[in-house]
Amino acid sequence: MVLDIAIIGTGGIGGYYGARLAHAGHRVHFLLNSEYEYVKQHGLIVDSHYGDFSLEKPLVYNNINDMPACDLVCVAVKATANPQIFPQLAPILKPETDILLLQNGFGNEQRLEKLYPKQHIFGGLCFICTFREGPGRIRHAFYGKITLAAYKADDVERLHQLALVFREAGIETIEIPDLMLARWKKLVWNMPYNGLTVVMNCQTDLLVKEQSMLDLTRAMMEEVLAAAKACGVTIADKFVDEMIQSTIDMVPYDPSMRLDYLAKRPMEIDIIYGNVIEYAKEHGYDMKYAKMLKWQLECLQSQY
Amino acid sequence: MVLDIAIIGTGGIGGYYGARLAHAGHRVHFLLNSEYEYVKQHGLIVDSHYGDFSLEKPLVYNNINDMPACDLVCVAVKATANPQIFPQLAPILKPETDILLLQNGFGNEQRLEKLYPKQHIFGGLCFICTFREGPGRIRHAFYGKITLAAYKADDVERLHQLALVFREAGIETIEIPDLMLARWKKLVWNMPYNGLTVVMNCQTDLLVKEQSMLDLTRAMMEEVLAAAKACGVTIADKFVDEMIQSTIDMVPYDPSMRLDYLAKRPMEIDIIYGNVIEYAKEHGYDMKYAKMLKWQLECLQSQY
Repeated sequence: MVLDIAIIGTGGIGGYYGARLAHAGHRVHFLLNSEYEYVKQHGLIVDSHYGDFSLEKPLVYNNINDMPACDLVCVAVKATANPQIFPQLAPILKPETDILLLQNGFGNEQRLEKLYPKQHIFGGLCFICTFREGPGRIRHAFYGKITLAAYKADDVERLHQLALVFREAGIETIEIPDLMLARWKKLVWNMPYNGLTVVMNCQTDLLVKEQSMLDLTRAMMEEVLAAAKACGVTIADKFVDEMIQSTIDMVPYDPSMRLDYLAKRPMEIDIIYGNVIEYAKEHGYDMKYAKMLKWQLECLQSQY
Repeated sequence: MVLDIAIIGTGGIGGYYGARLAHAGHRVHFLLNSEYEYVKQHGLIVDSHYGDFSLEKPLVYNNINDMPACDLVCVAVKATANPQIFPQLAPILKPETDILLLQNGFGNEQRLEKLYPKQHIFGGLCFICTFREGPGRIRHAFYGKITLAAYKADDVERLHQLALVFREAGIETIEIPDLMLARWKKLVWNMPYNGLTVVMNCQTDLLVKEQSMLDLTRAMMEEVLAAAKACGVTIADKFVDEMIQSTIDMVPYDPSMRLDYLAKRPMEIDIIYGNVIEYAKEHGYDMKYAKMLKWQLECLQSQY
């Protein structure tokens, strides 16, 4: 079945997964900002380590109000933009529309639910190295797996349908029953690597090459596991080794926070650190390493 | 009484206090390295915020073996040089010679005692902003207080005599009975400011201007107090406020670790962090902030 799919935010993540879904035959409607005219004329190119492909005539928009109501809405803007973006979604929602948030951080689904209490809401965690390398050009450098979870317990069967859509588009897709587990697992990677590449001014490769940084990332990952546990979410210890090994196996990479820092854009400090630290604290766990990194990031951001 | 005083290491600290003692009339014998010829010809100039002065013909040496036996030996080299320096002191020691270590870190006195078990050993903690601003030129920018403590309980009366020597040379001098207390108090300033000016690439002023850095330095200082307490040393809570206020009142300053970093010299990472973290750990306290900073410093040093 061909679906109408909206991609809200055509960056590295939205652009890549949207292009895959379009390539698989769905009618994918891309919301663009500054690159709207360029992509309308020249299309969208994906340089993927699974094989390059392009969309010559993608359906592009620079205003949500021009988009049709869709079967699936994927929100792939930075979570910092949610207060602006969420209220604008109403015109493209049908009662049966699934909304999938491809974003970092806690509390995004809760915020969305307040505005659209009856909508089906899903969270997607992307383990992927992808970025916009130029206008209309996405570079997919490594990995690509997406982990999907339903926000509401009733939506488990719908989750299965959603996962099928992604799988049939050639995307490795995992369904897990617990969105909080998925979010915490994602943080095991995000909390050390996003901030440390900024503060230490390096790519991921230095963080797996230097013993000092291996010690620190491991300590930070173990802190995330301990915080998750205090919040009732159990992650197996060996997941720490898996995340470090994945990073060793990866190409040298600039996480999104470092790209933001280098471009002097606001970093997702509250999304990846502040909210999580708060949440853990409410559950009695003091995330000291994360707190220190957050303070260091705040100081660097204040010097823009 | 005129004393023979050896200054082992004529840097910012040794140069400043040695020059004060010479200015007060003592025969001060300065051990120099690369600046030996220059200072021999041009003397030693002290630009002090208490008033400039100079020594036109200081007694200078480039070899310990040429120095006379002294009444007081002040060791002001970096503690990292102790394994080389300590064994060389024998020729300038008399049975009654006092040895004063003007150094950072734990365990220096213990190491010295192993070599010279019968000698009188003292520790000096300098709360001062001073650095070598050129050959034979010391810039004393702010503060200047020295805190002296005896390493051995029997030496309390000698400590009093030693303090008098410093006081009569116009140096604000405090005697305290407990060397470990003095060391821990010094660490309350050293542990946050030395490392953070390196990692955040700034002078001390930014660390008291940005709220994020005020939060972090306070958290690190409270960690030092907690670690000290675990090791049986109690420091009053208000000392944290005093140290922060002192730093607010100070000129923007590069602590010695940042000067070492900028000059690509080895930093005192083990002296100021590693040994202290180890010592606290043996007493059951985990200094997470200090550990994280140590790892960050090790990584930066590995990139020289």
